[in-house]
Amino acid sequence: MTGRRPAEPGMTIAQVETPALVVDLDAMEANIAALAARVAAYPSVRATPHAKAHKSVEIARRQMAAGASRVCCQNVAEVEAMAAGGIDNILLSNEIVGAGKAKRLAQVARMAKIGVCVDHTDQVAVLADAAHEAGVTLDILVEIDVGMGRCGVTSTADAVALAKEVVKHKNLRFTGLQAYHGSAQHLRHPEERVAAISKATALARETADALRAAGLPCDVIAGAGTGSYENEMTSGVYNELQCGSYVFMDADYGRNDTAYPFRNALFVLTSVISAAAPGHAVCDAGLKSLTAESGLPVTYEAPGITYIKATDEHGTLQLSSQTTVKPGDRLKLIPGHCDPTVNLHDWLVAYRGDKVEAVWPVARGW
Amino acid sequence: MTGRRPAEPGMTIAQVETPALVVDLDAMEANIAALAARVAAYPSVRATPHAKAHKSVEIARRQMAAGASRVCCQNVAEVEAMAAGGIDNILLSNEIVGAGKAKRLAQVARMAKIGVCVDHTDQVAVLADAAHEAGVTLDILVEIDVGMGRCGVTSTADAVALAKEVVKHKNLRFTGLQAYHGSAQHLRHPEERVAAISKATALARETADALRAAGLPCDVIAGAGTGSYENEMTSGVYNELQCGSYVFMDADYGRNDTAYPFRNALFVLTSVISAAAPGHAVCDAGLKSLTAESGLPVTYEAPGITYIKATDEHGTLQLSSQTTVKPGDRLKLIPGHCDPTVNLHDWLVAYRGDKVEAVWPVARGW
Repeated sequence: MTGRRPAEPGMTIAQVETPALVVDLDAMEANIAALAARVAAYPSVRATPHAKAHKSVEIARRQMAAGASRVCCQNVAEVEAMAAGGIDNILLSNEIVGAGKAKRLAQVARMAKIGVCVDHTDQVAVLADAAHEAGVTLDILVEIDVGMGRCGVTSTADAVALAKEVVKHKNLRFTGLQAYHGSAQHLRHPEERVAAISKATALARETADALRAAGLPCDVIAGAGTGSYENEMTSGVYNELQCGSYVFMDADYGRNDTAYPFRNALFVLTSVISAAAPGHAVCDAGLKSLTAESGLPVTYEAPGITYIKATDEHGTLQLSSQTTVKPGDRLKLIPGHCDPTVNLHDWLVAYRGDKVEAVWPVARGW
Repeated sequence: MTGRRPAEPGMTIAQVETPALVVDLDAMEANIAALAARVAAYPSVRATPHAKAHKSVEIARRQMAAGASRVCCQNVAEVEAMAAGGIDNILLSNEIVGAGKAKRLAQVARMAKIGVCVDHTDQVAVLADAAHEAGVTLDILVEIDVGMGRCGVTSTADAVALAKEVVKHKNLRFTGLQAYHGSAQHLRHPEERVAAISKATALARETADALRAAGLPCDVIAGAGTGSYENEMTSGVYNELQCGSYVFMDADYGRNDTAYPFRNALFVLTSVISAAAPGHAVCDAGLKSLTAESGLPVTYEAPGITYIKATDEHGTLQLSSQTTVKPGDRLKLIPGHCDPTVNLHDWLVAYRGDKVEAVWPVARGW
């Protein structure tokens, strides 16, 4: 059941029911503009922002308006939601299995240009059948593992063999490589990220060269995230940047030793529900409002208050000796990890200054 | 937006779309019966199972049918969902703030008997106003901190003072103490739990005695969870047991050094989406299908496969040298922590043997 809307446009932030996910529109718009400006300096490179961070058609529209060539999604439900909202060029930067999902993806390709990744011949056959059935063409990227140890073929020979398999099917169009290095995003020091992306770039270049030598055009080399994108952007190899978190930022990115040109735009708005003893309080944002696997949230503009423990419906707060709070007091929390935190909510409350401007649905589900 | 239903009754498990949350009805029913049988041996004690674990009216009905005197909820949305589903006696075992939530709770009290906790006079006044406005009576428990360091007054004097405040309001009825020791649930060794609950019991007894001495009847002493309930049940002090996880169990409870009479009934059903290199595969259940703050999920009846890393939409699997998988293969995962994992899903797929019997909505939202 979709949760009730925590706010309506025109309300003040003080009237929003808690816990709620709130988006500072000024900060978000500045983030979208900042990435667009950086990418504009590299004519061969395009921003293809990742919608898995926000799951919001409204935000994807703003990213496309700022010059993105397409948006990325991570599952079929996101693709369906984006296409239904008018986004006409989408990359599912992931593998899918099963005839049911392939069929849904092919259906969407009737109204939007759709790309999808493969790393195994079994996936190719299922996609080809679904595309044929729907009378559409799907763009295919072969995913290569460039150091993350997750999806992707692990040799140049496997990449070439798989691309050759793709081009056998007339409803599939081989377009290039997915070469995302996810675990590089949160390496804390810039030189560690440089080293990781240098290796990824070398692997992507070697694979693309082998594909071209085999007569397979390799137009797209896609990857990059908010942590490392400056490296891919300036690599001379990557030409699509899949940054997602930049639109919101989070506490974990705040721990990288780099001054990114992005501001915190996403917060969990929470109320103090208990303040029964000095030095200690409890708020209503716990594990059902934010995730803790990448560290606890950080309180925003509340220097005397530290979030020290998350349980299901409670966040335990430690107060400095000068700080007192009472039930009903409110706080903004910077989530530890923006993507899975957004996924916990049905609504994004978009505000500017003190006023709610809009309440946007979150495209949850598989 | 509510996610689409991953299954329909009558399907086989093999037809359920992944990732999906699935419930083994035989195991769940055995768990409900096992707790009921334990509690039945102690005539002064009642089971009041916690619905925050399952967020499902269908499961709450089965718990009430097995002898529970009421169910517990942790937020107003759960109370609303349970009451709308016909559960007629509900304890909100938590503090709430704000006139909006108090009003919603008082509205529900027109159709069900409702209790709620307080640990501060500010909460009392808001609840009294809302109850008066709605023409209802709310049962009030004063929450005391028995060692968890979260909500609850921290002295007997504060508990007595707060109960005296409650009884000033004719639409509030003071009924006893909420004395839950949450952090005792996952103490690994039985003797640690005995020690923690012994202290909690002593504090609850002392507080109840002080209340009675002040002329305040203290009928309810509530607390306990799946990890420690045998201790509260046999304490001679506690008379309401708020176990929640017992209905499903999870990997974290599996790490307690105790043979509980409950079986794993909750799984995340997942598909392998990538198997590009020997010894390694990736499934479609990551941080948007399960939570990792209490440890990673454990594979069920798949001894050669270990879940080693959770990212947003991916679970990385390590395979033993004898194990091979291919895209489309399926696995059941025992979630690390059942409550926040349930909260990620819109639907519970209830199955028996190989057949889907029902698809139940999850009461998400605040």
